[in-house]
Amino acid sequence: MNEFALIRRYFARDCATPSVLLGVGDDCAILKPAPDEVLLVSTDLLVAGRHFPLNTAPEDIGHKALAVNLSDLAAMGAQPRGVTLGLALPEADPDWLAGFAEGFHRLAAEFGVCLIGGDTVASPQLTLAVTVLGGAQPDRVLRRDAARPGDLIAVTGTLGDAGLGLRTVLSPDSVPAELPLADRDYLRGRLDRPTPRLAEGQVLAGFAHAAIDVSDGLAQDLGHILAASGVGAEIDLAALPLSAAARRWLALDPSVETLPLTAGDDYELLFTLAPEDRDRLDFPATVIGSIRAEPGLVVRNRAGQAVDLARGGFDHFAVGPD
Amino acid sequence: MNEFALIRRYFARDCATPSVLLGVGDDCAILKPAPDEVLLVSTDLLVAGRHFPLNTAPEDIGHKALAVNLSDLAAMGAQPRGVTLGLALPEADPDWLAGFAEGFHRLAAEFGVCLIGGDTVASPQLTLAVTVLGGAQPDRVLRRDAARPGDLIAVTGTLGDAGLGLRTVLSPDSVPAELPLADRDYLRGRLDRPTPRLAEGQVLAGFAHAAIDVSDGLAQDLGHILAASGVGAEIDLAALPLSAAARRWLALDPSVETLPLTAGDDYELLFTLAPEDRDRLDFPATVIGSIRAEPGLVVRNRAGQAVDLARGGFDHFAVGPD
Repeated sequence: MNEFALIRRYFARDCATPSVLLGVGDDCAILKPAPDEVLLVSTDLLVAGRHFPLNTAPEDIGHKALAVNLSDLAAMGAQPRGVTLGLALPEADPDWLAGFAEGFHRLAAEFGVCLIGGDTVASPQLTLAVTVLGGAQPDRVLRRDAARPGDLIAVTGTLGDAGLGLRTVLSPDSVPAELPLADRDYLRGRLDRPTPRLAEGQVLAGFAHAAIDVSDGLAQDLGHILAASGVGAEIDLAALPLSAAARRWLALDPSVETLPLTAGDDYELLFTLAPEDRDRLDFPATVIGSIRAEPGLVVRNRAGQAVDLARGGFDHFAVGPD
Repeated sequence: MNEFALIRRYFARDCATPSVLLGVGDDCAILKPAPDEVLLVSTDLLVAGRHFPLNTAPEDIGHKALAVNLSDLAAMGAQPRGVTLGLALPEADPDWLAGFAEGFHRLAAEFGVCLIGGDTVASPQLTLAVTVLGGAQPDRVLRRDAARPGDLIAVTGTLGDAGLGLRTVLSPDSVPAELPLADRDYLRGRLDRPTPRLAEGQVLAGFAHAAIDVSDGLAQDLGHILAASGVGAEIDLAALPLSAAARRWLALDPSVETLPLTAGDDYELLFTLAPEDRDRLDFPATVIGSIRAEPGLVVRNRAGQAVDLARGGFDHFAVGPD
């Protein structure tokens, strides 16, 4: 199958939305911005074996490639308007492509976003490049640099699931033998099929101060907010929201207690808000700490002691053990 | 150097333009669309050893990655408004990165476009993902589907240079021994540093009918216009514009006579226009044929005979000899 037939067969689906004037098939796609909206743009690269395990199902790769990108729009409170997909593939395997396209298009349909363009090339290394375009009212965009001393720090969903899910793949021997199979499956699912918190981001755009999505790990991503805002923070390790599966794992193996602080890939929203706005959170969210004027991040354990944050999060070019 | 330091050092340059409200450094960049403009988007992937020779200088890789993408905006008559860069790198080599960034930023500055975001990841395979965003008045966008019977077919610049340049790299033994070294250098330069025809595209947007950039080869790219417009064409092989270097090569080795028809990577604009608009071309362009109602592409040689187009152009997933 040649490149053009491949694109038509798997990726050129009908997708009607008022913001897309021209989709796949010309040199560029054409978007019509909504009146008074600004346009938000984010690009992510995903490399097989690095951003997802090599044994990840093609449907899940399609889901995740789009989800992590939509998550960037969510973190700024934007609505998705269109997405482009660059696909570097070792071979044009129809089963793989059908599965990948299914996972990608299913999530796209769930959030009403159209695939408007892209590129397909042959490469020894499976690599995905996704660029999302979103719209937002300019005075409702959430940024990293807007945290203020006294703000509460909160997070959607639960933390550490994806990191524990990755352990089930990379070091299965480290999984407690007593952990139910259903828990392992749940955690792996959280790694493979993250949920972009778009609806939550749009609610937060009305009153939250700073926001970011947790891709590199809570400590590191909170660090970005602190650095950009010129503030510090104190968080409470015992307050971190955990899934039932993660809770059972930590009970069986306390050595992974700080993993929800440093592991990436959860794609939950981390945000700050004025204490008086706490009641406006109309979705599951957990307050984990507060912003303070003094720089630095202090994490306290159950005993009130400061936890050492030797490893802040995932860094693609960090030197040392990884 | 970690990922964030790397991005700051090589890619986060000051770049002021009224269309960019927020550049590198948050989850998304923010663009402010100009009033009444539509937004054009194009994504290209470039894989080392496939889209550029492995021995390409990092400055030239930076130039080419941006140029081929800007060329897509040129083909639709748009003005660049911002670009994102995804970089998958085997290692964070400072010399390579400095060269790459220099080539990329130099071309970006030439066309007044800012790097507004991106992603940097480690990968065994050097891969670049570039997404450009452009603006255009909606009634001035050039598309592939607007060619009409009776239109002239014309092309900017010269054809076949990049294809011959690639030969100097991939099969140096096939280069005629008598070809001057300066010609080889010129052709290699055309392969490595294509010129996006943005100014020409914006002129053409005022009166041309259909347009495309020549990335996969003249025959194949013209085929896209014909298919999208539901028309056919006849072109004259002898009319194809050739550089002096290509002309000398063809004189020494007539077996490559049809290469300017099928070789890709020239990134010239191929367009159709009404015969009465020919005088409005205020830049170097050559009429090479005309659109007719009957489907199909007929190429005539000097003797007026139809040329067999066995190989249409570059196809990344084609089966057979390549």
